[in-house]
Amino acid sequence: MAKIWNKGFDADKSVEKFTVGRDREFDLRLAKYDIIGSMAHIKMLVKIGLLEEAEEKKLRSELQRILSDVEEGNFTLSDDAEDIHSQIEAMLTETLGESGKKIHSGRSRNDQVLVDLKLFFKDEIRKIKTEALELFDLLQTLSEQYRSVLLPGYTHGQIAMPSSFGLWFGAYAETLVDDMHTLVAAWRVANQNPLGSAAGYGSSFPLDREMTTQELDFETLSYNSVAAQMGRGKSERILAFSIASFAATLNKLAADNCMYLSGNYGFISYPDKLTTGSSIMPHKKNPDVWELIRAHSNRLQGLPNEIALMTTNLPHGYHRDFQLLKENLFPALETLHTLFEMTHFMLSHISVNNNILEDEKYRYLFTVEKVNELVLRGVPFREAYQQVGREVQEGTFSFEPVLNHTHAGSIGNLCTDAIRTKMVKAAGGIG
Amino acid sequence: MAKIWNKGFDADKSVEKFTVGRDREFDLRLAKYDIIGSMAHIKMLVKIGLLEEAEEKKLRSELQRILSDVEEGNFTLSDDAEDIHSQIEAMLTETLGESGKKIHSGRSRNDQVLVDLKLFFKDEIRKIKTEALELFDLLQTLSEQYRSVLLPGYTHGQIAMPSSFGLWFGAYAETLVDDMHTLVAAWRVANQNPLGSAAGYGSSFPLDREMTTQELDFETLSYNSVAAQMGRGKSERILAFSIASFAATLNKLAADNCMYLSGNYGFISYPDKLTTGSSIMPHKKNPDVWELIRAHSNRLQGLPNEIALMTTNLPHGYHRDFQLLKENLFPALETLHTLFEMTHFMLSHISVNNNILEDEKYRYLFTVEKVNELVLRGVPFREAYQQVGREVQEGTFSFEPVLNHTHAGSIGNLCTDAIRTKMVKAAGGIG
Amino acid sequence: MAKIWNKGFDADKSVEKFTVGRDREFDLRLAKYDIIGSMAHIKMLVKIGLLEEAEEKKLRSELQRILSDVEEGNFTLSDDAEDIHSQIEAMLTETLGESGKKIHSGRSRNDQVLVDLKLFFKDEIRKIKTEALELFDLLQTLSEQYRSVLLPGYTHGQIAMPSSFGLWFGAYAETLVDDMHTLVAAWRVANQNPLGSAAGYGSSFPLDREMTTQELDFETLSYNSVAAQMGRGKSERILAFSIASFAATLNKLAADNCMYLSGNYGFISYPDKLTTGSSIMPHKKNPDVWELIRAHSNRLQGLPNEIALMTTNLPHGYHRDFQLLKENLFPALETLHTLFEMTHFMLSHISVNNNILEDEKYRYLFTVEKVNELVLRGVPFREAYQQVGREVQEGTFSFEPVLNHTHAGSIGNLCTDAIRTKMVKAAGGIG
Amino acid sequence: MAKIWNKGFDADKSVEKFTVGRDREFDLRLAKYDIIGSMAHIKMLVKIGLLEEAEEKKLRSELQRILSDVEEGNFTLSDDAEDIHSQIEAMLTETLGESGKKIHSGRSRNDQVLVDLKLFFKDEIRKIKTEALELFDLLQTLSEQYRSVLLPGYTHGQIAMPSSFGLWFGAYAETLVDDMHTLVAAWRVANQNPLGSAAGYGSSFPLDREMTTQELDFETLSYNSVAAQMGRGKSERILAFSIASFAATLNKLAADNCMYLSGNYGFISYPDKLTTGSSIMPHKKNPDVWELIRAHSNRLQGLPNEIALMTTNLPHGYHRDFQLLKENLFPALETLHTLFEMTHFMLSHISVNNNILEDEKYRYLFTVEKVNELVLRGVPFREAYQQVGREVQEGTFSFEPVLNHTHAGSIGNLCTDAIRTKMVKAAGGIG
Repeated sequence: MAKIWNKGFDADKSVEKFTVGRDREFDLRLAKYDIIGSMAHIKMLVKIGLLEEAEEKKLRSELQRILSDVEEGNFTLSDDAEDIHSQIEAMLTETLGESGKKIHSGRSRNDQVLVDLKLFFKDEIRKIKTEALELFDLLQTLSEQYRSVLLPGYTHGQIAMPSSFGLWFGAYAETLVDDMHTLVAAWRVANQNPLGSAAGYGSSFPLDREMTTQELDFETLSYNSVAAQMGRGKSERILAFSIASFAATLNKLAADNCMYLSGNYGFISYPDKLTTGSSIMPHKKNPDVWELIRAHSNRLQGLPNEIALMTTNLPHGYHRDFQLLKENLFPALETLHTLFEMTHFMLSHISVNNNILEDEKYRYLFTVEKVNELVLRGVPFREAYQQVGREVQEGTFSFEPVLNHTHAGSIGNLCTDAIRTKMVKAAGGIG
Repeated sequence: MAKIWNKGFDADKSVEKFTVGRDREFDLRLAKYDIIGSMAHIKMLVKIGLLEEAEEKKLRSELQRILSDVEEGNFTLSDDAEDIHSQIEAMLTETLGESGKKIHSGRSRNDQVLVDLKLFFKDEIRKIKTEALELFDLLQTLSEQYRSVLLPGYTHGQIAMPSSFGLWFGAYAETLVDDMHTLVAAWRVANQNPLGSAAGYGSSFPLDREMTTQELDFETLSYNSVAAQMGRGKSERILAFSIASFAATLNKLAADNCMYLSGNYGFISYPDKLTTGSSIMPHKKNPDVWELIRAHSNRLQGLPNEIALMTTNLPHGYHRDFQLLKENLFPALETLHTLFEMTHFMLSHISVNNNILEDEKYRYLFTVEKVNELVLRGVPFREAYQQVGREVQEGTFSFEPVLNHTHAGSIGNLCTDAIRTKMVKAAGGIG
Repeated sequence: MAKIWNKGFDADKSVEKFTVGRDREFDLRLAKYDIIGSMAHIKMLVKIGLLEEAEEKKLRSELQRILSDVEEGNFTLSDDAEDIHSQIEAMLTETLGESGKKIHSGRSRNDQVLVDLKLFFKDEIRKIKTEALELFDLLQTLSEQYRSVLLPGYTHGQIAMPSSFGLWFGAYAETLVDDMHTLVAAWRVANQNPLGSAAGYGSSFPLDREMTTQELDFETLSYNSVAAQMGRGKSERILAFSIASFAATLNKLAADNCMYLSGNYGFISYPDKLTTGSSIMPHKKNPDVWELIRAHSNRLQGLPNEIALMTTNLPHGYHRDFQLLKENLFPALETLHTLFEMTHFMLSHISVNNNILEDEKYRYLFTVEKVNELVLRGVPFREAYQQVGREVQEGTFSFEPVLNHTHAGSIGNLCTDAIRTKMVKAAGGIG
Repeated sequence: MAKIWNKGFDADKSVEKFTVGRDREFDLRLAKYDIIGSMAHIKMLVKIGLLEEAEEKKLRSELQRILSDVEEGNFTLSDDAEDIHSQIEAMLTETLGESGKKIHSGRSRNDQVLVDLKLFFKDEIRKIKTEALELFDLLQTLSEQYRSVLLPGYTHGQIAMPSSFGLWFGAYAETLVDDMHTLVAAWRVANQNPLGSAAGYGSSFPLDREMTTQELDFETLSYNSVAAQMGRGKSERILAFSIASFAATLNKLAADNCMYLSGNYGFISYPDKLTTGSSIMPHKKNPDVWELIRAHSNRLQGLPNEIALMTTNLPHGYHRDFQLLKENLFPALETLHTLFEMTHFMLSHISVNNNILEDEKYRYLFTVEKVNELVLRGVPFREAYQQVGREVQEGTFSFEPVLNHTHAGSIGNLCTDAIRTKMVKAAGGIG
């Protein structure tokens, strides 16, 4: 299969290997979207008179056949295909002859890959949304299930005030709402049709871009052809922001788990098979899964910066540099899916320690409660504060750990439903 | 003024200097919001019976007086104030005695600074929105004004296809819509009331958090107290994502300007006073302003990563580390405002070169047009392509640079109004 | 093959898949070093009486056999091996029974992987040194070859002063010396023996670490066992700094090439087969290879930051997070080798344009020369400066482009040998 | 004072404010070096006949006078000075008339600022070296002082094996040697004379660059003028790498301190005045200083990336973007000095807990010791391992915590002197 820009010579092997890079691997992910984009494009070409209806019918049938292969896992990129676009065009030409080539009218590989990416991102965003909602559900369930199990709350890494597993699990659920807002931004940026922007400067063909927008179920157009091309890098980065935002939440959850699992805390545990042992320390239960979630989520947090490095200081217009964005973004998406899966899996097996606060070292957790109780009984705050401080210093402090937290978002009032309502509303921004 | 946690000793000077850092400087930006937050808090304290109405009245009047000082620029942080919260409480106590201290009931400095920050961020986001819309307007105006002035379009940094100043300016306008979507995410994250989360684990006082939410005009609550505290770092980062997103757009615009201003392009020019000369090269007009916009926007693009470094791998709960987030975020906001201002200022003075395409080296811009024209006349694409390729190689290629681009988003159809509609809709997400 | 920490249950499949990650793939790179480390370790075990000489002989012979397999490419990690260390121990045990297990005495997988990595890094650093020196040689050769071909020099992206291909090529050669200094730092950090630090806290066996240091040809020890373990992350990062430093140089060289190849410059060219065409723009010669070098070198520049994210805020001691450092560092090393190769390949085929300065737009390059000439003839600098400025404004400026630059490092005096001496001295720091 | 490139118009105020930025502030740091650079330059101008000896004498005397002002803190940049270079030239011209202007012969502000920066960096590197050595000394002293106080060693955040304060303090000392290697790289890169490279393309004056190299005490030249200019950004980044490397070490030390200070560990303590209290939790001792060291060191770790963002993808030659590198590098140097100071200060006041291992939860620390003891008594490793594992599971495990670690780098053999020798050798690379 000859490269479509081939003008009579073979590119040197090492150049080819270098320039193709891992594209064949990543383009497999795009095959489906490339075909869908082509179907919309040829339908439009018929409308504007650049393709015969009969040709379109044959092309569509052939594209449908390739799509079935893709969906059944029977599609591979041949070794001499430069990319997915060339491969599919070559397959069409092989079967249909000259008609196969007409599919390229009014289109450049630049807008073709833009469409593929935007459609792919939309599906990925939907998948992230689903995974985030599943984790949200589990966290809310755990929050309700363990609502009355108390936990020391820390500030500055110091034992500070009473908290609860209800608060802890519920906090991560609510934090996912913040992340969801960033995913909505990524969705809106992805949900714009770039098809018709050609190589980034539009085309002299009378393309009907509103029609392909409808066909491909985009909400709107990337109207300006130059802007459509500038969406390369921009879309990836805004999606990467969202990936990084979720990753930061998972990172904190992993950090908490590692801490709670340490022998110096012992707040939670997991079945033996979900921790790993040591070759020379038979008593250990290492939180490898959480450590790796922590580490992977750090790599994901570095992604937006990597994209910034790869795109900054470049003027507008297509640069081959953009091709490499697949190499960091595509695996990052896979990693995020895996992290959601593993986080969900681990939390499904968590056991919480019911008697944490019985440990002597946590008795000072209740100093603030006592201050507040004195205040509610009419003692001026500063005086109550000083009295409790004195008791602590003299070692006479004691307090019955009965909590009477009632305000919204406190131990006794988790607002689970209100948080769910917020999440449903936020996630509603993604179609 | 004694530190409120002072228990009988003076902190060593160097420790104090180090821990206070540049907080006094940045807290000045928060003074206004701290007072507004306190006003809402005391009103609520009256409702739940922790403050007398008479006390509240005096406190409010005193707070109002301080707020006037702040607004008139007469407010400074005293050298021995630890932070804005201590300073204001001290001022109240000095004037009102014991009542002044009551303002601290049911509140911690942790949720106090969270409220201050969220209110501050909301105002900053509104300001960014306004600046982005003003730049958007200018870009659309310039796009229409220069819609018929042609420009070479580049791909791979190579002269590729005809473009226009209409497309160029318009592209940046439309790209700002993408950035605006990220700002909406930042807005939604900021628009949640953390007041009442206390030190991050809530309070045993029966706080009415719905009431303060209304008073402070937040859209909703950061319900879960732990989640509210986890918003520290998260809010900053999602705002930083948006700053970085706008910065990337300004960076590209600056890169374009630097390129277009080079003697090797000469597509645009600016009045002498907006460029700078060289001490030994009398003929030069250096694009210093655009170079500095490019450089500043790179620093801004590094911001989310810096926040990630400062917050990653830490378990939940307040850490003093968060204090330092002011040191990178606050100046970054100032920088972004300045970049919008300077970009607007520069573009207001741009002159475009009307005769660019007359230069011989741009004649091959029209090869694709000619291919397309042949196709529209019925020549099969591949044949038309080969014919034009032959003409180029033989040096016989010629084409009358009359453009007939008509599709949405092409040189002849800029879709200015449709893009405006998109922007208005996007920006509508910010109240 | 059972995991060596297996205590009677099978790890859940998904946990196993997640925790093993891509280790099997990357550990293949370490196999050779793992065996070499084991050979040194068993020799030492004999000396301190923990292994019989006869056992050592059998183990060594078996290790030698496996090493041959590795070197001939016949070694693979079995699907149920957790990592390279377990696999080799399992192979030894299968063949030699109980003796095979003794190899683990006084050693932990933690110091085992540390040794593997340090030995691997040393080989990689030597390879980078060789590649950098080869590129250095080529650049110096090109610098001498094209010493008299003039080129416009740019400041602020503006045509500024005369430069030459001699200066241009030579500059990149000399800049590689700076990068070499960072590689020396990485070498010194790698060249320390961590074997014997066990799990990071040493061992109660009377290990002879000086002996293994000599056996493994390390310059010195990572003495302190805790420090040896802290070398994980630290070694990777300092090596990553050096990778990033070289990458920044290659990035700039790539940016220059992309610019010089643009139709707006046309300073250099490459054979057709080293550039790529466009499917719809038959006249274009795209610098894809250089664009991809530019993009890849940006990913490499992001590496130190990724490592920082993955290791920061963690207390000392081994964390499983460190395993993931292989996933970004190992491919980065491969990428750097490829970039050196492609850069060398491209520059070997460069053609330079001999008549650049004949273009009218470059005539003002010589304003400074004229000022200087006037000064050398006795005209005060400020007066000469003003006279030339006047000529430029009035359009009467002219100057014969005869250059008389003689000082060290100027167009007429490239100091090629002195720069070579610097490089040889710098590279001498790596053994 | 008129700008030296002023050709008859005033730059617009806002442009001036924006382009000058914070340069006046940072240039004060460079004043001393600018003068020293000028002194070397004029001496050389005399030698090559471009300046009369009498003029040089007057200029030198005037420069000396300004230098005294600088050293006594009496030097300020006037509001209308563009930068330090213009200011000093203007001062000379005011006093000496035309001779003052001659100082600019054969020099550009580009190589002038390069010299200033390299000289400044050399002094800063020397200062960092001194600070690192002081911290090294303290750590080694503490290591010897507390060599026999045991500590639990952690892997995966889990209680693992016995460690000691001797190991812990000593580990940070030895790790500073690794960082020192990176500082040597920065030193070598800084220690090259760029003076004479002019605007980055050399000069047609017969400058004697070897002479200024000797005068300014540089080890060698940045020979190639283009390379000298490419040193901008490169020098900063390699220095930033070293800053980040030290910062990573301080970050880990801070993370350890925060952990050890937590109520869940309680391994160390500090005087009350070095920790801070909480407004509502009277019993807390917050490790604010260490938290802020941790946070600041994270900002420093982000520095190389910020520099990468600001310089990547730009072709060679001066860009105004480089000016902004002062804005992140200069404050980072100040921060690093402060972090060394605060770390030294804190560690000077540390108290260690002598009875940590008496706590029941640490008894399993000695499982490996027991396994090893059995092995030394002749029990096969695997059997010993299984026996101890059985004892742990059955709760019958016990072990007398007598440690017999003797190998180099173990608890009983800290190798303090050997590590000192390594450090002295490493630091010797910096003059």
